[in-house]
Amino acid sequence: MHIVTCAAPVNIAIVKYWGKRDETLMLPLNSSLSVTLNPVQLRAKTTVAISREFDKSRMWLNSVEQNIDNPRLQNVFREIKQRAYRCHSEKNNCGNREDMLNWHIHICSENNFPTSAGLASSAAGYSCLVSALAYLFGVDGEISDIARLGSGSACRSMYGGFVEWDMGRCNDGSDSVARPVASNEHWPELRALILVVTDDNKKTKSTEGMQKSVNTSELLKTRVERIVPHRINEIKEAIRDKDFDRFAEITMKESNQLHAVCLDTFPPIEYLTEVSRRIMNLVHRFNKLCGRTKVAYTFDAGPNACLFLLEEDVPRVLSLIRHFFRPVNSCFESFIHGLPIEVPRVTTDDVLTISMGIMPDTIQYVIYTNVGCGPQRLDDCDHSLLDEKGFPKRCR
Amino acid sequence: MHIVTCAAPVNIAIVKYWGKRDETLMLPLNSSLSVTLNPVQLRAKTTVAISREFDKSRMWLNSVEQNIDNPRLQNVFREIKQRAYRCHSEKNNCGNREDMLNWHIHICSENNFPTSAGLASSAAGYSCLVSALAYLFGVDGEISDIARLGSGSACRSMYGGFVEWDMGRCNDGSDSVARPVASNEHWPELRALILVVTDDNKKTKSTEGMQKSVNTSELLKTRVERIVPHRINEIKEAIRDKDFDRFAEITMKESNQLHAVCLDTFPPIEYLTEVSRRIMNLVHRFNKLCGRTKVAYTFDAGPNACLFLLEEDVPRVLSLIRHFFRPVNSCFESFIHGLPIEVPRVTTDDVLTISMGIMPDTIQYVIYTNVGCGPQRLDDCDHSLLDEKGFPKRCR
Repeated sequence: MHIVTCAAPVNIAIVKYWGKRDETLMLPLNSSLSVTLNPVQLRAKTTVAISREFDKSRMWLNSVEQNIDNPRLQNVFREIKQRAYRCHSEKNNCGNREDMLNWHIHICSENNFPTSAGLASSAAGYSCLVSALAYLFGVDGEISDIARLGSGSACRSMYGGFVEWDMGRCNDGSDSVARPVASNEHWPELRALILVVTDDNKKTKSTEGMQKSVNTSELLKTRVERIVPHRINEIKEAIRDKDFDRFAEITMKESNQLHAVCLDTFPPIEYLTEVSRRIMNLVHRFNKLCGRTKVAYTFDAGPNACLFLLEEDVPRVLSLIRHFFRPVNSCFESFIHGLPIEVPRVTTDDVLTISMGIMPDTIQYVIYTNVGCGPQRLDDCDHSLLDEKGFPKRCR
Repeated sequence: MHIVTCAAPVNIAIVKYWGKRDETLMLPLNSSLSVTLNPVQLRAKTTVAISREFDKSRMWLNSVEQNIDNPRLQNVFREIKQRAYRCHSEKNNCGNREDMLNWHIHICSENNFPTSAGLASSAAGYSCLVSALAYLFGVDGEISDIARLGSGSACRSMYGGFVEWDMGRCNDGSDSVARPVASNEHWPELRALILVVTDDNKKTKSTEGMQKSVNTSELLKTRVERIVPHRINEIKEAIRDKDFDRFAEITMKESNQLHAVCLDTFPPIEYLTEVSRRIMNLVHRFNKLCGRTKVAYTFDAGPNACLFLLEEDVPRVLSLIRHFFRPVNSCFESFIHGLPIEVPRVTTDDVLTISMGIMPDTIQYVIYTNVGCGPQRLDDCDHSLLDEKGFPKRCR
């Protein structure tokens, strides 16, 4: 039995991906750009094992066995095996490993954050799976395009720091790959706050939502053709220069334009809730109060916010979030997870100037994190999610 | 003393006007198209009087004296007087009326609907004022461009039925005029429901909102250049063919695109509230339940909805609106104003299929109306809002 364990991070798009030009190859209508978050706070972990002894391929996700026949997963398997075959042929190193390609596989994956967080866990998950399979089969070179086959945005989780997913031009998707723009050490003061919003509504899944937008939104075409290319260049400059004001403004405009396109979709798609809108409002009021853009929000296909800000502003912003949105019956400590932080009491001046009604019990908790690295192999077998027989150590 | 009284209708844009290319001449970035509502339910009424005896020009609006120096009002006065002068010169009929142009004027105006309704009362008001002034000064020919100087959308209230406001091309605004597309008798089954939503928030004024969108929304450019011209043609065809499904779909898409542009504005502008969104939701669910588009919503720079539907569907739709949104302590009768209607109890099947939470006390009342005629002169002096001395009959 061969066994590999990897961890991979979550990424947050700041120039948004919305709309595919190829549904099977997961080719996007436009390039996008993301920030990889610190995997200590948010990561997927995946163990893959392969053995001649396994009588079928199986997969467990967060301790629950999953159907392994889903087409996206099968596309990933097919592609990584082809790539492995090619690698080994080139190196005249087929023997053992080529044989392996026909064995059954066991996969066990789990996230260190609740699925209820509504974070794009499939990006971290597919990135992690592809990284682990690449180690398992000895594939090297570009593999972000394989992750893309599982979940488009997964390709961006293949690198740390700031990452561009180039839409590419080829019909086979070979040039639709992720590329690091700056490392996770480039902008050490940058911080992220994930605000996990309480929400009971069933939301349109992003795959379905994108498809509807592509079919019905006339504004999406313009966004894709005329606006995004320009914004990608602008935000790369802002990142290069560590120009927070500019970075923040583009980030918010991108989020707003994504949701504008959703509203322009017919029938309209609604991901933002009243709470999301209040968070946006709070950010704009806070920036106005500061006389500059100190905080940026961004929202994906759900109501949770990701705020970007600089380390020095975190305590004050958290004091405001806690004041306006926190659960009534939770203690301060359990409200804020992640990096250690002392949150002061909100100041009367801030509350009076912001002048917004409080909405208690609308944010469940906050994850405080920063920019992080890409997928990592975890060699210590303590990390393995599968036991020595290739079965989950924990299983429901 | 010469005295004239007119009534003028409210209009609801179905292809929206959002953004000016000239702020003083009130020239729009795109053509728009509206439905004139029945003035029996919603109208402005204005009496204008002119007399050598008046020692200054004065204006009363809904019984409260207003400052007459506002620039838009002054633009209207200047233009109608120039037009009057030209008309009389051409007819060699100057004498008495030309003299009049230098006299002071008294204006008294009131609406038959509460200002709190958040309906575009300035459109009806300026349309009414310009109509009355034209009669007073004996101006004939095109005058919708004069109404436009008071409030852009006022030009559309100069005609009944379905009205297009052609954006025009000339820099002086002479071709930016309203034109009837079909009369108020063309589609007798068409009905409108105005849902007056309870709302305490201060909203961005439409003039200011438009300006912000013009300055910051990149999507607005596309809408104006590429989308609206096509939609104007489409909706004219739908009106000509009395094709309700098509009419309704374009109407909803237009409303959504206007609010998408507002969200794409930076900082974003928010006119829709949670209640507006629920109304949209109810309409989409109802249409889905019916298997066709039986109701359309449209929203302007505020949370109130205007629904369009056919007469046969009014009772059922009203029963649903009453069920989901009505004030808890009001009787059924005071909830629905306007045209006479028997509203049945909502059916259990409809409630179960729509499957939406109720939001009591979120719609104050509903105005049930239909398509109406343009401004009318009211000859009977009982209608006059000014007494025989030229002062308001009622005044606070």
